[in-house]
Amino acid sequence: MPDLKLATETFDALYKNSLNPPGVTRAPYGKGEDMAHSLIHEIATSLNLDISVDFAGNQYVTLPGQDPNLPAVFIGSHMDTVPHGGNYDGAAGVIMGLTVLQHFRKIAWQPPQDITVMAIRAEEALWFSAPYIGSRMAFGRLPIEDYDTLERFDTGLSLGTHIGEAGFNIAALKSGKSWLTADHIRCFIEPHIEQGPTLVDAEVPVGIVTGIRGNLRYRDCKVHGVYGHAGAVPRESRSDALFAAVDFANTLERHWDDYDASGIDFVCTIGEFFTDPEHHGMTKIPGDVRFTMDIRSLDSKILISTHKALQKKAAQIASSRNVKIELGQFREAKPAIMNKKLREIFYRCAEKLDIAVMPISSGAGHDCATFANEGIPCAMIFVRNENGSHNPNEKMEMSDFGEATQLLTSFIESLD
Amino acid sequence: MPDLKLATETFDALYKNSLNPPGVTRAPYGKGEDMAHSLIHEIATSLNLDISVDFAGNQYVTLPGQDPNLPAVFIGSHMDTVPHGGNYDGAAGVIMGLTVLQHFRKIAWQPPQDITVMAIRAEEALWFSAPYIGSRMAFGRLPIEDYDTLERFDTGLSLGTHIGEAGFNIAALKSGKSWLTADHIRCFIEPHIEQGPTLVDAEVPVGIVTGIRGNLRYRDCKVHGVYGHAGAVPRESRSDALFAAVDFANTLERHWDDYDASGIDFVCTIGEFFTDPEHHGMTKIPGDVRFTMDIRSLDSKILISTHKALQKKAAQIASSRNVKIELGQFREAKPAIMNKKLREIFYRCAEKLDIAVMPISSGAGHDCATFANEGIPCAMIFVRNENGSHNPNEKMEMSDFGEATQLLTSFIESLD
Repeated sequence: MPDLKLATETFDALYKNSLNPPGVTRAPYGKGEDMAHSLIHEIATSLNLDISVDFAGNQYVTLPGQDPNLPAVFIGSHMDTVPHGGNYDGAAGVIMGLTVLQHFRKIAWQPPQDITVMAIRAEEALWFSAPYIGSRMAFGRLPIEDYDTLERFDTGLSLGTHIGEAGFNIAALKSGKSWLTADHIRCFIEPHIEQGPTLVDAEVPVGIVTGIRGNLRYRDCKVHGVYGHAGAVPRESRSDALFAAVDFANTLERHWDDYDASGIDFVCTIGEFFTDPEHHGMTKIPGDVRFTMDIRSLDSKILISTHKALQKKAAQIASSRNVKIELGQFREAKPAIMNKKLREIFYRCAEKLDIAVMPISSGAGHDCATFANEGIPCAMIFVRNENGSHNPNEKMEMSDFGEATQLLTSFIESLD
Repeated sequence: MPDLKLATETFDALYKNSLNPPGVTRAPYGKGEDMAHSLIHEIATSLNLDISVDFAGNQYVTLPGQDPNLPAVFIGSHMDTVPHGGNYDGAAGVIMGLTVLQHFRKIAWQPPQDITVMAIRAEEALWFSAPYIGSRMAFGRLPIEDYDTLERFDTGLSLGTHIGEAGFNIAALKSGKSWLTADHIRCFIEPHIEQGPTLVDAEVPVGIVTGIRGNLRYRDCKVHGVYGHAGAVPRESRSDALFAAVDFANTLERHWDDYDASGIDFVCTIGEFFTDPEHHGMTKIPGDVRFTMDIRSLDSKILISTHKALQKKAAQIASSRNVKIELGQFREAKPAIMNKKLREIFYRCAEKLDIAVMPISSGAGHDCATFANEGIPCAMIFVRNENGSHNPNEKMEMSDFGEATQLLTSFIESLD
């Protein structure tokens, strides 16, 4: 049974050192994330584990196996958080991996192959408006231009500048070099807190993830109309950007209704939506609206057909309401299905240990999707967590974390 | 035929001295409005007209009549503008009045009763979020508490503070004293530029206004939901403030459809609508939306029934979508019907002068409504103007202004 003392202390230290009320902030390539990586480095050193750091600053902590030539078992997640976020999203997976390695060190078990805990950089898409940056860089999969064009929203500095300033190897990254290759990784396991109330509602401590939703993200949709006097311009002469944007948003929600009615996995969110604060006014017809869209599904075909339907609808609304609508650039993250055999091992271990588990789909994206899209067998387990994630009220019980850790330990011991 | 040299020079001086690119800014009780009133004072002095200023800073320029005890004919409009607005909205009416007085001085005509040009303060509702402040103060009709509670949006200072700092008599205003009374005013005529493209489209230089729409203004409507992860929270657990606000806005527009289908006069505008820029994000379910509403009709019963329908709909949406909706405080300006006899005189004069005119309703509110609601016979004439008002592109031709001035002159000469 793994000891949770180290895990508890690590969570406390992370919290204390990245506190930014309300919540914690560990910006990618910022102070908080660097602190978290230093902490992982310290623990790995104290456990006498091998440490390496790739071109992008992702950190690998390895318990060497009997045959170093065999593909390694990877356990990983990310150390960054959203601004004013919670302490567990990301970090829980890395700390669980270290707790498992600590246990194997304690019982002096040498696994057949390397077991590597990967502490990943820059997962939270909000900072650079792109998903899974750290894990994609590890595989050399980030488009070269992204190093210059992606900018951290708060600093305005490019990803490349941040990576360079943090002392990592931007030249290697820009040359497209990969640190990881699929044939050296036997499987990738990402433990993570749950981010909706599914396990809480079902009163089950651990979920076995079936798949990770893909997403389409539109960062800068625009409706252009014409400002005018709220009383004096007759309806037929108006180019009202707000009612056009409302019409469009309403259409998106009606698509959701249709998917729900057909049992198709789908969620969508318009997280930002605003008239122009520089020019809007209570008695002015608004001439500009900007908004974002985040559209997710386990089915990549649904994402594509939704995009096409929205483009068509935008053109219809623009024409009938005498406005311009630009959906702008969007970024796609492909859905990922979790490996069936790995899931079966988790179920068998759970039964053996008498830990209640249930299948659950991941609405949010995770680094695990990057590994799955490389063809690596992947699995995720979710730990019950109240109040969702990306907010200061994340509430994971250490007893649930302990059950998940026990399950993960047993899983790794069961791999033949 | 009135000479337009003074009018042209006055428009130029106003423009030059309140330029604030793009457009002009003459904030109520600010530098621009004060400059405009000084200019009116200078012109009145040069024309040897009587000048008085009321408790609130409204300025009265009078050509004395043969019998000073007869109720006076009033011509008036306001000197303030919206921020970065156009040069003609408001000022054109005052300058037209002065041009008429100049003409009467030139032909040495003494009218039977006083003719007073009133240059009104603080008409633009955007500054203090309340309509017709200047004209209502002249009648002692502004609720006493408004002097402390209305705040200019850019300075944050109360109306009372602004009036006091400008050197006017806030004590008299707060005691509810009126400067004007209905029985001393024979009629009130407000010339104004048109604010929609109706006259432009019809190729008619002057409109005779049938009525002024009343309005309901909601300055701070709020939808409160719960922030959450855009991918991880299942639909039934969401309290999405944006989709709820979109639903509500969409409902308002459907009301408009119904009124249009029934031939009921109605317009509505949501001028401001925004998720919270401090907390929103592309991958977050939005927890807060704020918006404004501006709802107008010539029919006061329609305004009241719309308000009731919106309250009911807000409650339904709040309950079905698990959010809170507060429509908040609203301000009402009553509709005003223009005097039929005065309109008939305008039509007769237009026919005599061979000036093309047409009936037009005023979508926007005007000080004229204050006078109409005091029971004073009122009329408005609109001068053709391209590109609407409240924007830097107002485009009134001086030849159209000239025709309207000729019509107004003839109108006053025709009053028996």
